[in-house]
Amino acid sequence: MIKMSELPIAPVTRIIRNAGAERVSDDASQELIKLLEEEAEKIAVNAVNLAKHAKRKTVTREDIEAATK
Amino acid sequence: MIKMSELPIAPVTRIIRNAGAERVSDDASQELIKLLEEEAEKIAVNAVNLAKHAKRKTVTREDIEAATK
Repeated sequence: MIKMSELPIAPVTRIIRNAGAERVSDDASQELIKLLEEEAEKIAVNAVNLAKHAKRKTVTREDIEAATK
Repeated sequence: MIKMSELPIAPVTRIIRNAGAERVSDDASQELIKLLEEEAEKIAVNAVNLAKHAKRKTVTREDIEAATK
């Protein structure tokens, strides 16, 4: 199954440009999206587990913070 | 100066929901956006430096890959 990216390309390209890039290849933005989504999924899975452990249905800011520890 | 987020909230909320969350607080999504943007900025600064070092104006996929090493 091909997994679609969730994050849009334009804001990620802006982040690279804001870091001082004169030009940014589309491939570069796609690669950064891939890395960010991998990181986001790891944090999200941890956060969901923390919320379930606390018997809550809602994932909160504190779950996200704790998920990175 | 207040820094605006680049990443939109809806796709980040979807990533948390796809990880198994029944509900996701807006604060949780905002916190994950903050973490992802910090990570993106670190990688982007490294990638821009690598491109400049190679005397290129364009940041490429290889710069992003190397920036995480």
